[in-house]
Amino acid sequence: MTDTHLHHPHAEEHLLSSATLTDIVIGMSDGLTVPFALAAGISGAVQGTSLIIIAGLAEIAAGSIAMGLGGYLAGKTEVDHYHAELKREYDEVEKLPHIEKQEVKDFFSSLGLSEEVQQKAVDEVTKDKKKWVDLMMKYELGLDEPDPKRARKSAFNISISYIVGGLIPLCPYFFFKESIEALKISTVITLIALFVFGYFKSRVTGVNAWVGALRVMVIGAIAAGCAFGIARLIQS
Amino acid sequence: MTDTHLHHPHAEEHLLSSATLTDIVIGMSDGLTVPFALAAGISGAVQGTSLIIIAGLAEIAAGSIAMGLGGYLAGKTEVDHYHAELKREYDEVEKLPHIEKQEVKDFFSSLGLSEEVQQKAVDEVTKDKKKWVDLMMKYELGLDEPDPKRARKSAFNISISYIVGGLIPLCPYFFFKESIEALKISTVITLIALFVFGYFKSRVTGVNAWVGALRVMVIGAIAAGCAFGIARLIQS
Repeated sequence: MTDTHLHHPHAEEHLLSSATLTDIVIGMSDGLTVPFALAAGISGAVQGTSLIIIAGLAEIAAGSIAMGLGGYLAGKTEVDHYHAELKREYDEVEKLPHIEKQEVKDFFSSLGLSEEVQQKAVDEVTKDKKKWVDLMMKYELGLDEPDPKRARKSAFNISISYIVGGLIPLCPYFFFKESIEALKISTVITLIALFVFGYFKSRVTGVNAWVGALRVMVIGAIAAGCAFGIARLIQS
Repeated sequence: MTDTHLHHPHAEEHLLSSATLTDIVIGMSDGLTVPFALAAGISGAVQGTSLIIIAGLAEIAAGSIAMGLGGYLAGKTEVDHYHAELKREYDEVEKLPHIEKQEVKDFFSSLGLSEEVQQKAVDEVTKDKKKWVDLMMKYELGLDEPDPKRARKSAFNISISYIVGGLIPLCPYFFFKESIEALKISTVITLIALFVFGYFKSRVTGVNAWVGALRVMVIGAIAAGCAFGIARLIQS
């Protein structure tokens, strides 16, 4: 740890895990893995590539829509949930101030403050209803105000990342006639892509990047191997 | 809002969104939608059902492994990340107490406490290093100590939910020879399953359950419709 680092505690580094990066990680993670594994699976059962392309594109369409709309609804739900809870807290502060005051006191007590400072802190916070409710929302319920525009952006980011991720393993099937040939190239390309993606994903989440890269690659390989094996088993 | 409700503020209801339920929702949500849409897509391109079964099972294998292992690694990463940050906070409290004290003070200031109470609270919290670090972890960084066993449980729950969810839309393809016939039954069964699932999912997340049920069903229908359309387009 360098001295410069120590003088700038790690606030900025946490900011790296921004919402957009998270969306890209979510979308691309599944986008690279599932269409790759599916194409590998079907390659274990058919010789030509046209059906793999159809199934692969259908999967990418289905997956990107399911994940994108899923992300959109999750964002919407978060906003609705936040506002419902906010209203509820205002109601409770109005109608049951003694209980809500006790909850604020419990919060300060959980921080390890003395009885005296707890009481003073409660008095100061509960003088202002907005401060009071904000504290309850953020620290009792652990809810931050969500950005209402996030839902749409998030849906878009996740979908596009899924499509981009999914087209990488599918590419070789457009250029080869024999599915097994295409599968070989697809495997090489996708394992490299998973490794690179895993590397950057780990840097975002703050894990050792090389270990993370290997982990992500191994998951993809296992998923594809199992899908291939299952398809072969059914076929035979 | 009933009086009984008011006397028991909503702590218990928040507990409903337990980790296991969240896992099931994650797994089943994609498990019902993507294999359904994929099977629908391939039905738009082939007449028989054997290939749809192969592709469907390969997808379920790939998806459940990708999501399950993904959940496992996410859990592992969370544990690693927590302990790395914990160590870092202990280091910083040791080496840069003035900066870390200021951060605790900023936290109390953000709650709206007066200068005097802020100072007292800071003095009390920073007397005990564990309390001090705990406060920084939880409220500055927003990190709760993760359960180290969660990762494995979470992987298992997500995978199984994905498999169960995925087999529902695939079932009819085992019993029909014509893909379009199977698709009709699959659509009816899956839309019902999505509706029921959406209903319970919404109760967990606290949204209006009927609206939530409709939303989930519509996402599945759109994903399947697009996959079907794309496969038809390529085929023709």
